[in-house]
Amino acid sequence: MNYRIVIYIQGQILKFESAFLSLSCIVALIYREKQGFAYLAAALACLAAGFLITRNRPEDRSFYATEGLVTVAVAWLLLSITGAVPFVLAGDIPDYIDAVFETASGFTTTGASILTDVGALSKCGLFWRSFTHWVGGMGVIVFVLAVLPMMGGYNMHLMRAESPGPTVGKLVPKMRDSAKILYLIYLALTLAESVLLLLTGLPLFDALTISFGSAGTGGFAVRSSGMADYSLLSQGIIAVFIMMFGVNFNFYYLLRGKHWKDAFKMTEVKGYLIFIAGSVLLITANLLRYRIYAHPGRAFHEAFFQVGSIITTTGFATADFNLWPGLSKAILFLLMFMGACAGSTGGGFKVSRVLILAKSVKQEIIRLLHPRSVITVKMDGKSLDKDTVRQVGVYLTVYMGIFAASFLLINIFDQTDFETSISAVTACFNNIGPGFSKVGPMGNYAFLSVPSKLLLVFDMLAGRLELFPMLVLFVPEVWRKSRRKAADNSRRAH
Amino acid sequence: MNYRIVIYIQGQILKFESAFLSLSCIVALIYREKQGFAYLAAALACLAAGFLITRNRPEDRSFYATEGLVTVAVAWLLLSITGAVPFVLAGDIPDYIDAVFETASGFTTTGASILTDVGALSKCGLFWRSFTHWVGGMGVIVFVLAVLPMMGGYNMHLMRAESPGPTVGKLVPKMRDSAKILYLIYLALTLAESVLLLLTGLPLFDALTISFGSAGTGGFAVRSSGMADYSLLSQGIIAVFIMMFGVNFNFYYLLRGKHWKDAFKMTEVKGYLIFIAGSVLLITANLLRYRIYAHPGRAFHEAFFQVGSIITTTGFATADFNLWPGLSKAILFLLMFMGACAGSTGGGFKVSRVLILAKSVKQEIIRLLHPRSVITVKMDGKSLDKDTVRQVGVYLTVYMGIFAASFLLINIFDQTDFETSISAVTACFNNIGPGFSKVGPMGNYAFLSVPSKLLLVFDMLAGRLELFPMLVLFVPEVWRKSRRKAADNSRRAH
Repeated sequence: MNYRIVIYIQGQILKFESAFLSLSCIVALIYREKQGFAYLAAALACLAAGFLITRNRPEDRSFYATEGLVTVAVAWLLLSITGAVPFVLAGDIPDYIDAVFETASGFTTTGASILTDVGALSKCGLFWRSFTHWVGGMGVIVFVLAVLPMMGGYNMHLMRAESPGPTVGKLVPKMRDSAKILYLIYLALTLAESVLLLLTGLPLFDALTISFGSAGTGGFAVRSSGMADYSLLSQGIIAVFIMMFGVNFNFYYLLRGKHWKDAFKMTEVKGYLIFIAGSVLLITANLLRYRIYAHPGRAFHEAFFQVGSIITTTGFATADFNLWPGLSKAILFLLMFMGACAGSTGGGFKVSRVLILAKSVKQEIIRLLHPRSVITVKMDGKSLDKDTVRQVGVYLTVYMGIFAASFLLINIFDQTDFETSISAVTACFNNIGPGFSKVGPMGNYAFLSVPSKLLLVFDMLAGRLELFPMLVLFVPEVWRKSRRKAADNSRRAH
Repeated sequence: MNYRIVIYIQGQILKFESAFLSLSCIVALIYREKQGFAYLAAALACLAAGFLITRNRPEDRSFYATEGLVTVAVAWLLLSITGAVPFVLAGDIPDYIDAVFETASGFTTTGASILTDVGALSKCGLFWRSFTHWVGGMGVIVFVLAVLPMMGGYNMHLMRAESPGPTVGKLVPKMRDSAKILYLIYLALTLAESVLLLLTGLPLFDALTISFGSAGTGGFAVRSSGMADYSLLSQGIIAVFIMMFGVNFNFYYLLRGKHWKDAFKMTEVKGYLIFIAGSVLLITANLLRYRIYAHPGRAFHEAFFQVGSIITTTGFATADFNLWPGLSKAILFLLMFMGACAGSTGGGFKVSRVLILAKSVKQEIIRLLHPRSVITVKMDGKSLDKDTVRQVGVYLTVYMGIFAASFLLINIFDQTDFETSISAVTACFNNIGPGFSKVGPMGNYAFLSVPSKLLLVFDMLAGRLELFPMLVLFVPEVWRKSRRKAADNSRRAH
């Protein structure tokens, strides 16, 4: 691996972290909070370290898949580790491991919290928490790419390692332009939500932070009551926007270019909407049957909000779905695994992967019945290539493997009930936030031991970065300095 | 599909069912139970129907993959439906759906029961229950193949559709000889266990029925106390034999031919033993830590028995593992999914599939780091072909798909707790028997609604037959009479 270039980019990341942190200083100034000094100190430290590291541009610019994967994984670890410092300095979260958990949960847009009382946090702390969602949602590297002119070769490797989904959504030939377009759409939607929430009577601070949380499909609230305090209208707007952020952003790109037909033909978007509609209907019926809500409209409202919140892996809560009947919980549990569209800010396994796998099953059954006929799997009119199908199969394997290993480890580290342990892993790995039982919408992750918290931090990062960047960190070969032979192999290929 | 040939084979199956049932008549004679008449009536009815159906041999003998899959699926359904009749006639299980559940659970070697008091059953009923395990363990079709001379072409299609595992274990060139060898090994091991259990003081009836249950890795007990009444020595013998029946039978074939080296080189067998050793150690430590058992030897004994019982998907219970601490339950839960070796009588996903998937992940990571290098996955010294890897990937997809759908449906049909619903599906789909919570070792499946019971019958059959035979029943094309074009396609390929 080319260590120098990886470290150099970490320096750049630190400069961006400094810029992000300084926004919290402004919030502290407005609210005249002394906790702002913690953010100032952290911002200055990141800035200094960033400049120190990026003093000299590395001469050896060889940058391949390995460097791309490691850079992304280390960058996200670095963001979590440094972003946690001001929480401790400000006294908002005294324990450093807890602060790392909270920050990683923020950047990965998980929204799992170790806080017992969110309302007790300083305004600048709350702002920082929510802002990490916004940055993490579309991706830090994508942000860096959009802003910073980098040398050609490695944009693709970086973006491929960070973007969610089985195929990289390159909107336009130039990576940098793609990154810019994505962030512009993202910014526009976030602003639209903030304005609408302001109009429904939310204070500016709430409107902004909740828009950050929706945009990144994160899930951190800024009040102890979660979303329950806001009016039904505000909740409805939030639910609609959450669902919009779970849509593949290619959809908006096509809309912007007025390619209406192409946009509404997207198989994944159609599948996503069908899953939402089906789940909302079933849960509404289930809630009414067991009289959890007397009024059908209210049952629909809660089902709609919760389905949006869970399928997009946001995890905002208006109600304690932990107390809902079995079927509603089962649907939410399954949605937790599926997640939203690829190329959106949502997490989970992704709708497109589910659809690709479903199509590959159909293909396999045809193959079984007609052993030698030629069969191709099609999606969006194009036939899916074998590599994608194989990769999605392997992805499912790794996904189940990490899930099983985490479930085993959390039970080694902590003695808790079945529902808590399995849903804690599910909720963190899929970047949702709240699970069931002790880690349900009204609970939190504070009671877990340090090893469990670190495990869940790993799961959150692995879930957000689509497994492989975090996984290659465990491959010894990656850490060998001299990889000329491997590098040559790769070079020949490009 | 060639209906005539499929129906013709069902006729043969009915004759075998008649022979199986007549064994229960003998038991009834010995114990002078009037319930024996129910078994006699059922046996005679099956015999008559069998002869009626097989009067004329069909002229069109075209038999391809479709016919193989459908024949196997329908045969197992037929065995369950007809095998349930004497339970009702004898008054042992008054409800027919319950009886079908119990019989399907027997043939599929699941061992899930709707009985609240096993001890209250007639001896011939208990014998029938346990004997279905023995027949189902190695496979009904394999049995038919071993005994009956069939026309050449379709043995392979039938055996492939019934045998467990990603590749068909053809021991010798002729299918019929393979089937005979398998049943001889199976019979020898069953007899050995019976004799050893007799020597430790078990009554003949218990020794025989429990050996049937171990051999098929079924799990039905003949006493209300399960296995808890037997001495520790007897339990130990049962545990060892269960684990032996979970080994790929190729291993014994190699041993018989004195190919010691090849036998102990089998990757799957090694993996299986490592999984057992690791799980036993972890659970023993966990049981001691939480003082579930005071004596280390006893903790080891219980862990050893339960790991063997669950990894082989047998489901015999000596202790109520429902009350064990979280880690022990988590390990058992994961073992439920993995199951035993391919080519054994155990169910689940199979150790070899886990190993193949693990190797495909390793391959994918190498591919990620060295995009264009040629990588082959090896197992047992031979490189695994792409088709097997792809098939296993698809298998995992179908497996997770059926699991998710069943979990959703059981929650639609019944309102119960999360742990019960998820473990009921897990335990039936993987042919284990007992789950956690209400369907734990001391509970049963009686309280479920009829749709849930039928769903679980489907899951048991799908699990035992490795998904696809049951799945193709839902493909409309399969049921079309004129499939000449498809048949031609297949014919060309053979």
